Amino acid sequence: MGERARPVSVAGKVMAILNAFALGDVRLTLSEICRRAGLPLATGHRLVGELAAGGFLERVPDGTYRIGTRMWRIGSQAPAVTGLRELALPHMEDLYEATHDNVQLAIRRDLRVLVVERLRGTRSVPVLTQVGQTLPLHTTGVGKVLLAHAPAEVREAVLAGELTRHAARSITDAGELRRCVEQVRRSGYAVTRDEMTLGAASVGAPVRDADGEVVAALSLVARTRSADLRRLLPPLTTAARALSRDLAAHWRGRPDLFSADRNARA
Amino acid sequence: MGERARPVSVAGKVMAILNAFALGDVRLTLSEICRRAGLPLATGHRLVGELAAGGFLERVPDGTYRIGTRMWRIGSQAPAVTGLRELALPHMEDLYEATHDNVQLAIRRDLRVLVVERLRGTRSVPVLTQVGQTLPLHTTGVGKVLLAHAPAEVREAVLAGELTRHAARSITDAGELRRCVEQVRRSGYAVTRDEMTLGAASVGAPVRDADGEVVAALSLVARTRSADLRRLLPPLTTAARALSRDLAAHWRGRPDLFSADRNARA
Repeated sequence: MGERARPVSVAGKVMAILNAFALGDVRLTLSEICRRAGLPLATGHRLVGELAAGGFLERVPDGTYRIGTRMWRIGSQAPAVTGLRELALPHMEDLYEATHDNVQLAIRRDLRVLVVERLRGTRSVPVLTQVGQTLPLHTTGVGKVLLAHAPAEVREAVLAGELTRHAARSITDAGELRRCVEQVRRSGYAVTRDEMTLGAASVGAPVRDADGEVVAALSLVARTRSADLRRLLPPLTTAARALSRDLAAHWRGRPDLFSADRNARA
Repeated sequence: MGERARPVSVAGKVMAILNAFALGDVRLTLSEICRRAGLPLATGHRLVGELAAGGFLERVPDGTYRIGTRMWRIGSQAPAVTGLRELALPHMEDLYEATHDNVQLAIRRDLRVLVVERLRGTRSVPVLTQVGQTLPLHTTGVGKVLLAHAPAEVREAVLAGELTRHAARSITDAGELRRCVEQVRRSGYAVTRDEMTLGAASVGAPVRDADGEVVAALSLVARTRSADLRRLLPPLTTAARALSRDLAAHWRGRPDLFSADRNARA
């Protein structure tokens, strides 16, 4: 995100301050907030003070600021995310119990993957993924699934963009990624090995709505060394299909409950 | 919450609009938002439009508004909640796997319980609890635990306030609640039966930080009819102690990572 255009309205300034935390940094100093938000220090100081008084930000004793619990609480009411999460959770529990690996649920937002939920146990391979974080489409199991089923213009934008290397075996060649994505569309699942995190492999499967459109992806993330991905595939695709049926039943006639604008900025 | 004092600053108005959704209503019309936020329609219209353009709110095709995914994403960075959740999740998974009942994690915010995480499976008793929701202290397993270990002034405020009946066996008598809370402090766990939801029973146990202070509560919610709460107690207290140890190890020397202000408005 980096430095932004200077916001004009006060509401724009407030959103710019809150957006400064969207990158996942736990704490920011006042001057870091102002630099990211494109605000003069005096304006930033006043608005940050108001947001802290309202519980939207919290002032840490060392003088830095972090997102406040009130912000979390209001954000947790977002139906596009929490509606999907509520339906998915029992299926994710089943998957976790069957495999004891990390279970991830993600949606696409513009050209990135947004992690909506993640379950992990004491025995799961450590992964850095956090709920609310965005990840690249081309290096993750959920991402490849969402990329394979994205509108053509999204796919071409990703293929034309920079394919960053995140781990030893990230696909950084557009031609290879195109073939991989076509394979995912044909086979109905995606596989990664050491593409996002060294030592971690994943399988991803699509979650569809009542119209058969892919609206989310479910994945299992396991140790590359010990994971038998063919063994993980049957429970994964079973859970993804069960969730798709729930989604179709629950949201039939209420398509607006699910976020319409998947190309929106995450 | 209801109608509020009219906010003066623009940042205050923006927060009032977002706070209008804190009660858990999925969708609000513009006039409902303005009424709750104490704003004239013209002001509300302009600010809601800006918030929707920024992804903080989403406009549903029927013309109502709901919390947007961007708000969820920024809120999910709140360390006071998500740090605790990340540490708790593996222990909650273990508990779910051992019992297949609802597993809840909660903290106290002022005179209410704030639900931080909830796991449930396909076989768990249906409960209405949502993540991000606040519940009464006196009718829930997590609430009784948090009440038993709250500062005296919090406890007295709850005992002096109205003890609402939420289900057949809610404790609505201050003297009875005082004896119950003393029992919870002595025994180290809390029990409810048909006090919040008819048909649901719960056991709750305290989660402590490095100083032994109770900072959260963990609970199992099961069917009143079939639940053997004495059977649920050993896995629950085991998980609560394991989480307390993790908390102490992880947050030693970083007490500021955990929210200092537990009396803040949730």
